Amino acid sequence: MPVTDITDLTLEEKASLTSGADFWTTKAVDRLGVASIMMTDGPHGLRKQSGATDHLGLAGSVPATCFPPAVALASTWDAALAERVGEALGVESAIEDVAVILGPGINIKRSPLCGRNFEYLSEDPLVAGVLGSALVRGIQSKGVGASLKHFAANNQETDRMRASSDVDPRTLREMYLRAFERVVSGEQPWTVMCSYNRINGVYASEDPWLLTDVLRGEWGFAGLVVSDWGAVNDRVVGLPAGLDLEMPSSGGRTDAQLVAAVREQRLSEAALDLAASRVLDLVAKAGRRPVAGPLDVDAHHALAREAAARAVVLLKNDGGLLPLRAGSSVAVIGEFARTPRYQGAGSSLINPTRLDPALDALAADADVTFAPGFTLDDTGDAASLCAEAVAAAAAAEVAVVFLGLPAVEESEGYDRTHIDLPAVQLETLAAVRAANPNVVVVLSNGGVVALPFRDDVPAILEGWLLGQAGGSATADVLFGRVNPSGRLAETIPLRLEDNPSYGSFPGEFGHVRYGEGILVGYRGYDAKRQAVAYPFGHGLSYTTFSYSEPSAVVTADGDVDVTVLLTNTGTVAGREVVQVYVGRAESAVQRPPRALAGFASVELAPGQSTSVTVRAEARDLAYWDVRVDRWIVEPGAYTFEVGASSRDLRGSVVVELEGDQVTLPISLDSTIGELADHPVAGAMARQILEVLDQAGDGAAEMMASVPIGRVATFPGMPVTLEQVRELIDTANADL
Amino acid sequence: MPVTDITDLTLEEKASLTSGADFWTTKAVDRLGVASIMMTDGPHGLRKQSGATDHLGLAGSVPATCFPPAVALASTWDAALAERVGEALGVESAIEDVAVILGPGINIKRSPLCGRNFEYLSEDPLVAGVLGSALVRGIQSKGVGASLKHFAANNQETDRMRASSDVDPRTLREMYLRAFERVVSGEQPWTVMCSYNRINGVYASEDPWLLTDVLRGEWGFAGLVVSDWGAVNDRVVGLPAGLDLEMPSSGGRTDAQLVAAVREQRLSEAALDLAASRVLDLVAKAGRRPVAGPLDVDAHHALAREAAARAVVLLKNDGGLLPLRAGSSVAVIGEFARTPRYQGAGSSLINPTRLDPALDALAADADVTFAPGFTLDDTGDAASLCAEAVAAAAAAEVAVVFLGLPAVEESEGYDRTHIDLPAVQLETLAAVRAANPNVVVVLSNGGVVALPFRDDVPAILEGWLLGQAGGSATADVLFGRVNPSGRLAETIPLRLEDNPSYGSFPGEFGHVRYGEGILVGYRGYDAKRQAVAYPFGHGLSYTTFSYSEPSAVVTADGDVDVTVLLTNTGTVAGREVVQVYVGRAESAVQRPPRALAGFASVELAPGQSTSVTVRAEARDLAYWDVRVDRWIVEPGAYTFEVGASSRDLRGSVVVELEGDQVTLPISLDSTIGELADHPVAGAMARQILEVLDQAGDGAAEMMASVPIGRVATFPGMPVTLEQVRELIDTANADL
Repeated sequence: MPVTDITDLTLEEKASLTSGADFWTTKAVDRLGVASIMMTDGPHGLRKQSGATDHLGLAGSVPATCFPPAVALASTWDAALAERVGEALGVESAIEDVAVILGPGINIKRSPLCGRNFEYLSEDPLVAGVLGSALVRGIQSKGVGASLKHFAANNQETDRMRASSDVDPRTLREMYLRAFERVVSGEQPWTVMCSYNRINGVYASEDPWLLTDVLRGEWGFAGLVVSDWGAVNDRVVGLPAGLDLEMPSSGGRTDAQLVAAVREQRLSEAALDLAASRVLDLVAKAGRRPVAGPLDVDAHHALAREAAARAVVLLKNDGGLLPLRAGSSVAVIGEFARTPRYQGAGSSLINPTRLDPALDALAADADVTFAPGFTLDDTGDAASLCAEAVAAAAAAEVAVVFLGLPAVEESEGYDRTHIDLPAVQLETLAAVRAANPNVVVVLSNGGVVALPFRDDVPAILEGWLLGQAGGSATADVLFGRVNPSGRLAETIPLRLEDNPSYGSFPGEFGHVRYGEGILVGYRGYDAKRQAVAYPFGHGLSYTTFSYSEPSAVVTADGDVDVTVLLTNTGTVAGREVVQVYVGRAESAVQRPPRALAGFASVELAPGQSTSVTVRAEARDLAYWDVRVDRWIVEPGAYTFEVGASSRDLRGSVVVELEGDQVTLPISLDSTIGELADHPVAGAMARQILEVLDQAGDGAAEMMASVPIGRVATFPGMPVTLEQVRELIDTANADL
Repeated sequence: MPVTDITDLTLEEKASLTSGADFWTTKAVDRLGVASIMMTDGPHGLRKQSGATDHLGLAGSVPATCFPPAVALASTWDAALAERVGEALGVESAIEDVAVILGPGINIKRSPLCGRNFEYLSEDPLVAGVLGSALVRGIQSKGVGASLKHFAANNQETDRMRASSDVDPRTLREMYLRAFERVVSGEQPWTVMCSYNRINGVYASEDPWLLTDVLRGEWGFAGLVVSDWGAVNDRVVGLPAGLDLEMPSSGGRTDAQLVAAVREQRLSEAALDLAASRVLDLVAKAGRRPVAGPLDVDAHHALAREAAARAVVLLKNDGGLLPLRAGSSVAVIGEFARTPRYQGAGSSLINPTRLDPALDALAADADVTFAPGFTLDDTGDAASLCAEAVAAAAAAEVAVVFLGLPAVEESEGYDRTHIDLPAVQLETLAAVRAANPNVVVVLSNGGVVALPFRDDVPAILEGWLLGQAGGSATADVLFGRVNPSGRLAETIPLRLEDNPSYGSFPGEFGHVRYGEGILVGYRGYDAKRQAVAYPFGHGLSYTTFSYSEPSAVVTADGDVDVTVLLTNTGTVAGREVVQVYVGRAESAVQRPPRALAGFASVELAPGQSTSVTVRAEARDLAYWDVRVDRWIVEPGAYTFEVGASSRDLRGSVVVELEGDQVTLPISLDSTIGELADHPVAGAMARQILEVLDQAGDGAAEMMASVPIGRVATFPGMPVTLEQVRELIDTANADL
């Protein structure tokens, strides 16, 4: 309920409300007591600018807790933890009087090359949707608004302000809108941020189908749509399409355009009223925020550490090299141990409240010698740095080698062109393992990297970017204080060329063909039966788990509850992420071999067993049917596979679902093959097929795909077009 | 020049000319002496119906020479031979008073699954264009019209009458229209046949862009457009789009629609005049055909045998197992040796003048024992058939095993769903090679099949479908009377899943996403660095050839002549197909690693050397630039690789080409990165970048992709939008 009634505002005041006052705030209307509110960058920490505003709003910001960026947080597969991180983000925003924090980003990782992948959650819409929902829930529980971004199909940085994501409707719904649909319908984020790009030729900021029909009409969004910073192309087009608030300020230029357009009747004042009233609603909501503070730096740092430790993915651990023994002699190698790479570049760059380098943390656990091994900017004497690392490794029980992507290699604003680690790092690693085979590789990278050495080292930890407490969290895992339980939310391929989007990323001359369709990420690798380095959902533990054969029941709502008895068969406590995938052997539509349908995590003491039930919701079993423009659960058999990763499946159960009936009218375009079994038209179709069959072997089979309206007009057919028309009318009469 | 003037015709007469009288003929206008002319199916032989017309025109036809279908003819990579085959087709058509033979089919083989691939030439538009041109040239040299088909983007049978080939403009031009452009502009086929499918939502039979703007406007087509049989959706829409003649007859129904539409001024009479006058032109052309006949059955059979022998591709020949020694003891295994599979099913099915089974031919060369090994319809006692084959193989010096696809597995009208040979055949082969390792596999298949046994047998002949003389041609190759020189015009992949179209073929619910873009066939396998069974262009010989390093010169027209000294280094005469591929290491657009730019074949005696020059035409070096909608040869360095296959490259030469300049106006949508080097706008763009750079490390890099019209309106920028606009006008003033 707005504090101010829209009718109290002048035309100019209404227009003024719909764009920013500066980089970060909305405009006040002093005479009516309408406050200005602030928004700041997120999504894994607060980036509230301090001091003078620079020209991009990118300079120094107030200290804030840098939580693990999305790439790492998603690897926890832990919605409860993500919600707690969201709560902390909300608290920090509230303390700084920030009304809306600009996150989470839930775009699907279509290609490993996207420069902003570190800000995104997953290649899978269920993981992105569930974790994104948790973040929004957490943030908004503190009276602060989230801004769900970047809506939509913004899956690359290359030419991001002009390129059109050319994507077919089923793929758009199932892969690129699905997580947004989940978060919007379930959590009602205060704001949704429209993206820079175009979708099938239309700017997201000007797309009435996207911003109004789908977002509000279908999903019931009741909040405000804000532009990504600079995403407005033409506000007179964008505002009636559903873009409520332009950010940052246009210096009043576009407000004046709105006023003129209303005056000249090119824009309805009702559309402007709607947008302005949504801004008033947002301001009112922000005004109801409870008092917060002061910031408990220690508590938030501890949460950042807990999240980071849970995010680490143990890719490999041959011979039980990990966990390391406390007090052992450890050569810590790699500049990243001393100079952590813990977040990504661009608008999400946090000024952290503190920072734990891994080197310091490890020194508390072990007898550490350090050698940088290489520099991050390729300066320095590589040979002597490498020799120093080799000497350290040779003298130690274990070498922990920190490799990663230098910060400049991935950022908002541009994409990578390869997924290789710098050659100097691989050379140092090769020399180190020649000197000491007991090598643990710890990776720091926002986007996936190729791991050509994976068969040559016994242990690999994928640390992604772990936020400000990543160093101590890494030590927690390495020394077993935390049993690793992170899981890959994206596939690590063998080669970039294997990725399904390869060849149609990042497009050219303003168009990006989403050529792989729904076969994104593991859906594509599985469909093409490709080997990968580490599959989606993969992650090892210091313990082991056994799975019973699963069972399943269908609920009254058509959801499927899949239950398995899980046992910790190892010697330490641990958390298992039980994953349920769904597939259909036969379908009227293309299906990936398996798609994640649900997941749950459970902690078990050694020897402990528990029953785990994972709910696969009906909506996650549906496909988008382009014939009727809605979600359809196909009737029939569904196979639910249960396992510890998408390629470590421990059992399966087949469930028959009643599903949804799709009854379409028949027409002259219906083929005689389609009609052969039709209750009304079948007899005529079969009669035609019989006549066709006289033309020779296989003639009927060859002609089954011919529309009845075409074949009826062929010479010598036993029916007339008029008879066909009548039959169609009869057949459709009951629809 | 029409015999009859269009103004002499009534409206009804004009309409009547634009659709068929029956399945195969046009309508006469007796009062004006306008004759009816006949068209019949092709494209590798004449299929003129005999006796009563059945309901599909598919029943018995007059005997005609069945030449090797397109799949085999293309494997010759021999335009001169294809032209001679075309001449023979023309002669046979003329003898039977057929005005137009419905071929060649030059659609690109996008997927190995397409049921009609046996009727198409290649996965490469240059091979398809060059061989297609030769066929048209040959046919039309005899006063008979060709019908270039199926125009366009008709690359599958599944739902072929409704499905839309959704394909981006560059891909459409470079991969799917390019061969049509070559044949039309070079050979002026009398007719072009529009296809059943839709292209980007528009029926080919109703697409004015395709049938008029491109075909006539850009390519200069002066002939007649005929519908594929039954491809008309709405003639009142199709006729003004450029569809001149509907086939077969609609019983007068659509003629009446045209008359009514003209009377009601929904259709311009001028459009009808144009279509009818093109029919008159065609009838007139047909009337000028010289007398032909009688048919020299022996000569045409001999030509069919020559073409078939040249089409055979020797995939593998370890240890020089081939050629076989005359008089040796040979176990001939496989039903296909007795019951040849030599052509495909559907409208192209020929009633051959004679038929040479391989078994009969081989019996003349060797001491043959025959065992069918399996049945073609999976009846019979597989175990005993296999045992009989094993016994025959064990008792012979060599086993020649004929494997292939049963006829029912591939046809016009439907697509395959896998590329496997029947399991029973693979089982028989495994048993046979266990009994006798000296196995030669001879394949009969219209579409590519997987060859899981390729590492286990010493020799493989890919025979495709070889036409009526295929059996004797196979014997010619097996016994060395013909040294094989065929080359793959399409890749044989390891697995169906490796094919670039996998995952977006054959589409669903009426839409097919051409997801792989230009990366069709070998372009895709190479781009993704995938292993294949046998690469595009591959084919062995009984002799060997050495290549010198190539040299190159650029002609005045911008073509590139690549020259290599070729030497027959073996002991028998042979033909080598010298292939020239072009690539660019750096380009403004996506490029496949290599694309065929030219080829030539040459026969050399043992020890003989010759200089071979292959011309790569400028038009084949161009890409389709969607910004300016035309072919552009990018200026700069081109690498020409010369070799015996796409993966057996013997040398390369780099050539600098002047190319074409593309000068585009700048606009508010030009990014500051693009403008930084602009002669007029550069200074302003660099000034903006400098200011942005103050915002922090990497800010300028991050913002390089922002359009100047957006960034100029950001708070604190050193320029105004008005200044940017003025600068743009200045910069564009000279364009």
